[in-house]
Amino acid sequence: MAQDEFGIIERYFTRAGAGHDVLVGIGDDAAVIDVAGPIAVAVDTLVENVHFPLGLPAEAIGYRVLAVNLSDMAAMGAQPRWCTLALTLPKPDEAWLEGFAAGLFSLAERHGVALVGGDLTRGPLTASLQIIGTLERGRVMTRGGGHVGDEVYVTGTLGDSAAGLALLEEGVVGEGGTHVALQERFLWPEPRVTAGRALARLVSAAIDVSDGLIADLGHICAASGCGATIDAERLPLSAELLSLFPPNVAEAYALGGGDDYELCFTAAPAQAQTVEAVLAGVGCPARRIGRLVAGNGVEVRRDGEPVVPTSAGYRHF
Amino acid sequence: MAQDEFGIIERYFTRAGAGHDVLVGIGDDAAVIDVAGPIAVAVDTLVENVHFPLGLPAEAIGYRVLAVNLSDMAAMGAQPRWCTLALTLPKPDEAWLEGFAAGLFSLAERHGVALVGGDLTRGPLTASLQIIGTLERGRVMTRGGGHVGDEVYVTGTLGDSAAGLALLEEGVVGEGGTHVALQERFLWPEPRVTAGRALARLVSAAIDVSDGLIADLGHICAASGCGATIDAERLPLSAELLSLFPPNVAEAYALGGGDDYELCFTAAPAQAQTVEAVLAGVGCPARRIGRLVAGNGVEVRRDGEPVVPTSAGYRHF
Repeated sequence: MAQDEFGIIERYFTRAGAGHDVLVGIGDDAAVIDVAGPIAVAVDTLVENVHFPLGLPAEAIGYRVLAVNLSDMAAMGAQPRWCTLALTLPKPDEAWLEGFAAGLFSLAERHGVALVGGDLTRGPLTASLQIIGTLERGRVMTRGGGHVGDEVYVTGTLGDSAAGLALLEEGVVGEGGTHVALQERFLWPEPRVTAGRALARLVSAAIDVSDGLIADLGHICAASGCGATIDAERLPLSAELLSLFPPNVAEAYALGGGDDYELCFTAAPAQAQTVEAVLAGVGCPARRIGRLVAGNGVEVRRDGEPVVPTSAGYRHF
Repeated sequence: MAQDEFGIIERYFTRAGAGHDVLVGIGDDAAVIDVAGPIAVAVDTLVENVHFPLGLPAEAIGYRVLAVNLSDMAAMGAQPRWCTLALTLPKPDEAWLEGFAAGLFSLAERHGVALVGGDLTRGPLTASLQIIGTLERGRVMTRGGGHVGDEVYVTGTLGDSAAGLALLEEGVVGEGGTHVALQERFLWPEPRVTAGRALARLVSAAIDVSDGLIADLGHICAASGCGATIDAERLPLSAELLSLFPPNVAEAYALGGGDDYELCFTAAPAQAQTVEAVLAGVGCPARRIGRLVAGNGVEVRRDGEPVVPTSAGYRHF
């Protein structure tokens, strides 16, 4: 039985990462990796009962802590390559660790990300993952490049994850696959890494939708010094979401619910055909939902008239 | 009053990092930094009441979470350059944040380290810092390069920090500066960054002393496939430590107490003069305390006879 930090790391977290330019891997004072050019660095923390409900399966937590960071890489147009993990646990629990590592590595292997180091500590359950990705010089997307007149896009569908979390928290099981489909959108988000890389040269600004569309598009507006208008009737809502919730609730989830991990981005109207072709090429659905305008803040319109959205995104405090 | 995540980051954690090759700094989905060549990456987490006592001043916590990571860079011979911070707080507290940031940035500025990103979350007090340093190709020290016959060195003095923590936890104030000197060794550890860089070409193996000398030298032994012998009479003990504790207690602190953040390293006997000259050149005291031997594990000897040390280092679980 793996009892101490070193035994746990050896047993659950040390996997060969050949071909990853890792010069020194897990087990020294630091990892050493070989890079040549700009890197993107992000960190995201998951705290039990804050970012995910008590009792979430360990596999989903391990998957999630990487997924949310991959989503940050996607929003920068970066190729995720290496990560480190700071994991704080109340006690070493074999089954939990096994599940956590399985979830983490299943996603890491799919994206070619090597876990190169970390820290394992005792305390309240908290998982913090730091990711490093590579970028081609001059191919970085930020939140701040948008211009008035640019069109606003979003990938995939919105609101499913927040609705799925609500169903999970209410313990709704339901018959058929509809509930499950929404719950799985929360449990196993699919970060848009390939789409992000493909878009890096084309778009003016980008962000991932983690706190809710209005909040996150608001970050683009603040950083770009403009406002945005969203056409409510153009919001991409899934058939599952619409089959379980009335239209106004579905829309509220899409506008204010977090954890979608889709990309919201802006591009000049002249780029529209190229953007659509590039995204079609990587199999990523996307929809134009509005535009950047003079002013500040995000306004939602229906049939051209402003409406008041019912939710304003996740707040960390 | 800064209430939300974004306000807190803006107010306390956003400082200009000019000249740090930071292409995109705090406030986007990821930071982008310009590097070309090997980098060292480490992460260390501090959990309240596990890694530091309840009620430790915020300034000391902010200082500490960077110091422990700088120490990892020192042990690799790396030049620390950039860091990200994952900070989990029960509630936003202005005075606490002010102190934490002051402690963190005082050390960061001294070492030319830029805070480029992070994540601020709500939950039990946990600070996790990820550091990135640069290395010259072929100048990386690891734990695994030691050879039988190499001499074992340690910088500075050992045991002061553990003794200082004990005095803090017992609430001992005492008269004169001796208690304070030891407590300050715990509160404000000075990572050996300059010494680490200077040693990188000369030594066969290195580690920083964070878990206690016996435990950390044991890691060198395990990674290098050998054992080590320490001469107890050669342990570097400070005058302060010896003035407050009997010799056997002082020695136990030096062998088993953690948090010294000195460097323990090994070098071929032929390198002795160079090692001493190089360390003298950067103003870092060091002492030869033993040697690597065939076998495994760390043995302490006094007058050539094995003795049983009274403490075996910090265990994370």
